[in-house]
Amino acid sequence: MAVIYSLLEAIKFLLLELNFFKKNMRTIITFLILAVSTTVIGQTDEDGRLIREIYSKALTQSSSYEWLRYLCKRVGHRVSGTSSYTAAVEYTKQMLDSLGADAVWLQPVTVPHWERGDIEQASIVNSKQMGNYPLSIAALGGSTATPKVGVTAEVVEVRSIDALEKMGSAAIKGKIVFFNEPMDPTIINTGHAYGKAGAQRFAGPSAAAKLGAVGALTRSLTLKRDDVPHSGMTQFEDGVTPIPCAGIGVISAEMLSELIKAEGRISVNLRLDCRKMTDKVTHNVIAEWKGSEFPNEIIVVGGHLDSWDLGEGAHDDGTGCVHAMGVLEIFKGMKIKPKRTIRCVLFANEENGMMGAALYAKAAAGNTREKHIAAIESDGGGHTPQGFSFDGMDVVLRKNQETLGQWRKLMAPYGAYYMDKGGSGADVGKLQDQGTLLFGLRVDSQRYFDYHHTKNDIFENVHKRELELGVAAMASLVYLLDTYGVK
Amino acid sequence: MAVIYSLLEAIKFLLLELNFFKKNMRTIITFLILAVSTTVIGQTDEDGRLIREIYSKALTQSSSYEWLRYLCKRVGHRVSGTSSYTAAVEYTKQMLDSLGADAVWLQPVTVPHWERGDIEQASIVNSKQMGNYPLSIAALGGSTATPKVGVTAEVVEVRSIDALEKMGSAAIKGKIVFFNEPMDPTIINTGHAYGKAGAQRFAGPSAAAKLGAVGALTRSLTLKRDDVPHSGMTQFEDGVTPIPCAGIGVISAEMLSELIKAEGRISVNLRLDCRKMTDKVTHNVIAEWKGSEFPNEIIVVGGHLDSWDLGEGAHDDGTGCVHAMGVLEIFKGMKIKPKRTIRCVLFANEENGMMGAALYAKAAAGNTREKHIAAIESDGGGHTPQGFSFDGMDVVLRKNQETLGQWRKLMAPYGAYYMDKGGSGADVGKLQDQGTLLFGLRVDSQRYFDYHHTKNDIFENVHKRELELGVAAMASLVYLLDTYGVK
Repeated sequence: MAVIYSLLEAIKFLLLELNFFKKNMRTIITFLILAVSTTVIGQTDEDGRLIREIYSKALTQSSSYEWLRYLCKRVGHRVSGTSSYTAAVEYTKQMLDSLGADAVWLQPVTVPHWERGDIEQASIVNSKQMGNYPLSIAALGGSTATPKVGVTAEVVEVRSIDALEKMGSAAIKGKIVFFNEPMDPTIINTGHAYGKAGAQRFAGPSAAAKLGAVGALTRSLTLKRDDVPHSGMTQFEDGVTPIPCAGIGVISAEMLSELIKAEGRISVNLRLDCRKMTDKVTHNVIAEWKGSEFPNEIIVVGGHLDSWDLGEGAHDDGTGCVHAMGVLEIFKGMKIKPKRTIRCVLFANEENGMMGAALYAKAAAGNTREKHIAAIESDGGGHTPQGFSFDGMDVVLRKNQETLGQWRKLMAPYGAYYMDKGGSGADVGKLQDQGTLLFGLRVDSQRYFDYHHTKNDIFENVHKRELELGVAAMASLVYLLDTYGVK
Repeated sequence: MAVIYSLLEAIKFLLLELNFFKKNMRTIITFLILAVSTTVIGQTDEDGRLIREIYSKALTQSSSYEWLRYLCKRVGHRVSGTSSYTAAVEYTKQMLDSLGADAVWLQPVTVPHWERGDIEQASIVNSKQMGNYPLSIAALGGSTATPKVGVTAEVVEVRSIDALEKMGSAAIKGKIVFFNEPMDPTIINTGHAYGKAGAQRFAGPSAAAKLGAVGALTRSLTLKRDDVPHSGMTQFEDGVTPIPCAGIGVISAEMLSELIKAEGRISVNLRLDCRKMTDKVTHNVIAEWKGSEFPNEIIVVGGHLDSWDLGEGAHDDGTGCVHAMGVLEIFKGMKIKPKRTIRCVLFANEENGMMGAALYAKAAAGNTREKHIAAIESDGGGHTPQGFSFDGMDVVLRKNQETLGQWRKLMAPYGAYYMDKGGSGADVGKLQDQGTLLFGLRVDSQRYFDYHHTKNDIFENVHKRELELGVAAMASLVYLLDTYGVK
């Protein structure tokens, strides 16, 4: 009987336990879900208060807009290697000094030095309908000059590098290749549409040169229907002799395409006097606030100080620089003493070589006393922020994913609802090998390519509050990274 | 033994079952969570595809931007009761006819008719520092005229109606009351900041008149630092004799405030010749696509066709009208045959009386064969959409909350991440008593009050893609409402 008794007891216990599980399944699950979702409740109350204060400060006391005004209106555009870039270095260093950094220094970087020159013309020369007809163009960074009289050649229109390569050198030799792939308007994030259509500018001229082309025109990378030409870098592969090449305005591109369809052989005369000068030594601008608890853990916040030589480098990337500087002004105003070291880095030469970022990353890798735990870049313009995309080594992303989900909830009330894997930025991307958690400020992208790399990238096209909300979003993320670190 | 054997069997079974629960807790929970979150997977795949197509169509084939151009540049501003409002009625009716509606009709509405007149001046007349100094003003809708020479009186500055009322009639009698409460820049959604500071314009002049004031100036409701005066409606309580009143530009307001602080008694001369004309009969414009399955269930999509008489009524609310019209163009282009009746309503007289909305709601309430299940309004400008806020009777909201959560997920990939309780719109709000589920398109609000009710509310300040994204967001919600109805 004792055996049976204990067996019955055991059964009773098991039945009870099973029943508990079965009957309380819903409660248990609810509890578990709640437990997961409120892991950091203790933190978030205080964090919520701090983030609220960061936003209020940014919207009422930030100097970011006035710094940007100076950078745009007093310094102007800032191709790295030029004297105006040097003026931008001096100005931003001075402003960072005034924010009471523990150290502000200039990190020497050797950069290429390219100049557009004074002549920039293209015309259709043989149209039956239009006669001699001017096209709206801007030389691409990396282009060579033409002879004084220009190059005159028949235009071959293609939609992609693939299509070009299929035509082969017999069809291309001696011609001007005209890349005419529009950005895809159905892609909501215009940055992605830019990436998709961008190869024609980044790599098209090199592919054309390899096949014997004497020049290249690339459709401006924009969704706006106007005739403002967009510049930007083009890369020639090692061993390929560069050719003259230029971005062509959308309306000019469509006109040229129509005439080719209507008349067959259309020739263009292209005149450029771009110059490649000798390399120059210039600087990244760096300011550092030493961490009180973990001084060897570095959090970088930055943008690039150089710009193209059309417009004023307002959205690209003056706004990124003043976003980063603005973070530190907010911290100073709120008397936040960082636990980790916060470093504002204004990179040189993002536009035509990325030498500043490469050098910075190399120096960081060589410094075994420091670990770059996180880096945030703003290089998508000064529009209303939507949040951040993040990137990094898989192992780093896995460990931090849950935390980032929590942070998203903290920032969503401010419209910064986005926190997903995606591109961070060209400059901070160089730190990826070091296990750094990388972030890119994600802003409303609809207007960015209206201005990007054109004469219209000017201060007037930046909205004060939109800019300040970017400062606040960046400062909030830096605050969270500083407070909790990176796993 | 048989007993023990069966007991052992039972224990074995129980142990196995318990083990299964314990060991697989994580899997079971994951499965349950997934099951909950994918209840509508069958729907969402097809819905996702449709919404993708809606966005692509809106970004490539929408007429919305060209309709808006016509409304702004050919019709111009459209105060209800004026001939330009009538021109807007004719134009939009014609466009709606061209979209193949089952019926397009004009619903007669009697509206007040107020005109600004030709004289609109204010000057400080007795400043020691500034002498006779002009202020930048615009009469408020509902203001009366001054005598030809104007009214000249000492200015009493207050920050709120409360503060005014505490001063009492002895301090206010014979004075010009100057309401100078800035919009709160720390509120992220500028619409909320507008609501908070708005009473000084909506109700301030009436409160001043009650205390014997001879005029009122109200600080322009904007966060932009410029001197462009903002107009807008003011309401005088029944039995209160209206007084002359005007919105004053921010810089003028700050100047006036500074002078009062510095010099004490500052007097202003205010000259207005606003006219209240006899009421006029004008129209709501309505177009209807009959539902194939539930023709008596009505889904309204609308904006208001009238505007203030400064600028061109672009963001307020030309964009709302072309958003609504654009929905139907998309449906036509995609050959979507609605199951429920979709009705595009362009309301008359939102700005100064809301007679169009009141009449529409009254007619709807009186029609027992129809039930207005949902109504969507766009009246926050043509900026990048962020989603929708919804409103309605508690019981309606409760029943539909889960569905709306699902819809949020469908639209978040397009940046329309917001779907929360909040204001819908002044016009559709009149349907609330009928149990209608109400929605307001929520757009990026940072720029709206730069233009609102000013000469700067013009076509050039609307961005084509931002506008088209609004059409797509509205069309997606109408598609979901039509497909699933309202509980």
